[in-house]
Amino acid sequence: MEDRINVGIIGFGTVGAGAVKILVENRNSIARKVGAEINVARIADLDITTPRPISVDPSILTTNVNDVIEDPSIDIVVETIGGTSPAGEFIRKSLEIGKNVVTANKELIAKEGAGLLPFAAERNLDLMFEASVGGGIPIIRPLKSCLAGNDIIEIKGIVNGTTNYILSKMRDEGLSFADVLKDAQDRGYAEANPSADVDGHDAAYKISILASIAFTSRVDVTKVYREGITGVTTEDMRYADELGYVIKLLAVAKKIDDAMLAYVAPAFVPQSHPLASVNDVFNGIYVRGNAVGEVMFYGPGAGSMAAGSAVVGDIIDTARNIRHAATGRVPCTCYETRETLGMESVRCKNYIRVLAEDKPRVLAAIANVFADNNVSIESVLQKIMPDNAAEIVWLTHEAAEPNLRSALDAIRALPVVKAIGSWIRVEE
Amino acid sequence: MEDRINVGIIGFGTVGAGAVKILVENRNSIARKVGAEINVARIADLDITTPRPISVDPSILTTNVNDVIEDPSIDIVVETIGGTSPAGEFIRKSLEIGKNVVTANKELIAKEGAGLLPFAAERNLDLMFEASVGGGIPIIRPLKSCLAGNDIIEIKGIVNGTTNYILSKMRDEGLSFADVLKDAQDRGYAEANPSADVDGHDAAYKISILASIAFTSRVDVTKVYREGITGVTTEDMRYADELGYVIKLLAVAKKIDDAMLAYVAPAFVPQSHPLASVNDVFNGIYVRGNAVGEVMFYGPGAGSMAAGSAVVGDIIDTARNIRHAATGRVPCTCYETRETLGMESVRCKNYIRVLAEDKPRVLAAIANVFADNNVSIESVLQKIMPDNAAEIVWLTHEAAEPNLRSALDAIRALPVVKAIGSWIRVEE
Repeated sequence: MEDRINVGIIGFGTVGAGAVKILVENRNSIARKVGAEINVARIADLDITTPRPISVDPSILTTNVNDVIEDPSIDIVVETIGGTSPAGEFIRKSLEIGKNVVTANKELIAKEGAGLLPFAAERNLDLMFEASVGGGIPIIRPLKSCLAGNDIIEIKGIVNGTTNYILSKMRDEGLSFADVLKDAQDRGYAEANPSADVDGHDAAYKISILASIAFTSRVDVTKVYREGITGVTTEDMRYADELGYVIKLLAVAKKIDDAMLAYVAPAFVPQSHPLASVNDVFNGIYVRGNAVGEVMFYGPGAGSMAAGSAVVGDIIDTARNIRHAATGRVPCTCYETRETLGMESVRCKNYIRVLAEDKPRVLAAIANVFADNNVSIESVLQKIMPDNAAEIVWLTHEAAEPNLRSALDAIRALPVVKAIGSWIRVEE
Repeated sequence: MEDRINVGIIGFGTVGAGAVKILVENRNSIARKVGAEINVARIADLDITTPRPISVDPSILTTNVNDVIEDPSIDIVVETIGGTSPAGEFIRKSLEIGKNVVTANKELIAKEGAGLLPFAAERNLDLMFEASVGGGIPIIRPLKSCLAGNDIIEIKGIVNGTTNYILSKMRDEGLSFADVLKDAQDRGYAEANPSADVDGHDAAYKISILASIAFTSRVDVTKVYREGITGVTTEDMRYADELGYVIKLLAVAKKIDDAMLAYVAPAFVPQSHPLASVNDVFNGIYVRGNAVGEVMFYGPGAGSMAAGSAVVGDIIDTARNIRHAATGRVPCTCYETRETLGMESVRCKNYIRVLAEDKPRVLAAIANVFADNNVSIESVLQKIMPDNAAEIVWLTHEAAEPNLRSALDAIRALPVVKAIGSWIRVEE
């Protein structure tokens, strides 16, 4: 039994510095909870001169990552640089040498978890990644342990703080996507190139990780259908409100019979749903299991200290395993290979905003197209606009997506229809 | 490494039957996640004849609890009978013999955890109790592992489904406490003797368990201040709504400097707070840590399958420890002894409803008493009632509870005041 467990950090950026700050500032309580001191033995970063929010003994800083990976005294390697390469190589090499690994890297786990996780398991090593989804929110460990008795049926998550901030501001202040994006960029909530967030790539990584755990079958991130929020308008926000919904970027994973389906798309969420009150940069992950029913996890999806909290939780768990010679005790659980379905298997209600000419029988013409395609209508709102235009908002009953897509194609082709302004799925 | 882990169940009631149902119906997936079959080897209950929601081989049923505890093939004893005695004796005896234990027993852990948990730890055995708080919601393990890097500052929980159902109905339907209680009793949501729920005993057990983990110091449940919901009126509900709040029975634990404080009381919660949208029989537990910031856990606080889900999660975790010879790897972490403060240390905003005579200067007279006691006022509403009466509703700024109590005593003594109708703390 070791009294001191040495941790080596690769990447002294936002998340790495947060984790180090927590390990240093809460050092005593962490030692008591683990039964061993957790010592930050080495930190590698290309930049070791810029001041960080936590100051450390300069002698532990290095620009050579091998000073961490190859140091025989280091028990746990923490990777917080992000991206697939060279992070993947660093982790693989660490595991090869026999180090346990903690990572915050959603892209890497989503893209290469299928190789890395069994690689760790074969060596009876821990490879933990709680911070990869939901920032500081406990979600990976609850899924792998607390809820492990359940057959998980569905996950719906607001897992990207930037887009949730943008949608919340659009709703609260009636501003356009472009205006709020600019504000978010000025505040540092959105990147100069916002695509990873607003186009749903980040959320797709995260839902592929969650779905793989939930459904015990690897979800290939390239098979996660993706729609971003760039097409969401202030009109959609207003209609959502009027109809009793809010618009959220949801990452959805569903089990359908023995197959599974994962997608990221803007969605109408009923105002009474627990996810509807997850606002601003917060994340919320809603899970439905066959035993527990519905649970939701809520908290900060990003940030130095929040993600650091998750990383340190993993370090503590790994350290407890080291003390009990039990590393690898919760291995990768993707023991099945399920089929991944496409969007043609989705059945849901839909919100559709049609821009048409304000002429007699326009509404009837569109309604007939829906009916021809077996899409039945729950409600319809028509507003007269300037210049002889009409905006007609449709809320459908549950419909199969192929039927809906056929209907929309046919509606778009109607001479009186100018455009399909928006189509947003309703998630209830 | 064992390929089959035998579980013995004590108590084949709601929770026990739920756990057995999950273990049987999800048997294959659980085996794959653990790497060993989890076998329900024996079930003890005084009643082994009434049909349960899951049918089992009658030969494993017994009315003699020692057939479970003393069976050498049983690795994990699951206690779901509730109450302190004989459950406590059964658990202690199981630990003495070297069994790991999973329990759903909040009252026992709250009252006797201080003895039982170190007793298990000394023997390197698991004694897990995830189902004791929040039903199916993962909260104990997230606190002990995922959030273990945090210094936890505060917990606010809606941890009693019965009272949350009652308060939700009172609000939504404008009904009185008595009417909704009767309805809840008819539906089986409330006991014939509802005191454990409506007087806050159940919530007090739960917050003492959560606070003990969060503050790494045992919180004696007899030191948890307790106010129930029997005094909450439909008028209070209306005023709360008007002022932007909802009324919830909150279980609160706070760290104040090095000391701690825990109480259960109805509270005004801002409508924008994540706890405000936790309705009906659902539970929500909001946790604030110095690293993670705010997180919340939401889900079903009771029910056969929900509590069963938590019990099975503990069984799976214990089974993984057994397979790796690592039982006792997360022991009791109450390694400190903090002072438990009384309500005199509370500082908060307050809602006060005063019934007075409708005479000139009544409002000024009451306002003067508040001022004399250093309680400053944020807002005041006065309504004229029939019979020359007035109802005056005060919302104070943050005030020290001793000052507030002095003010209320003095107001009650004013000749023009008929009664203090309600006093409810505001938790922001």
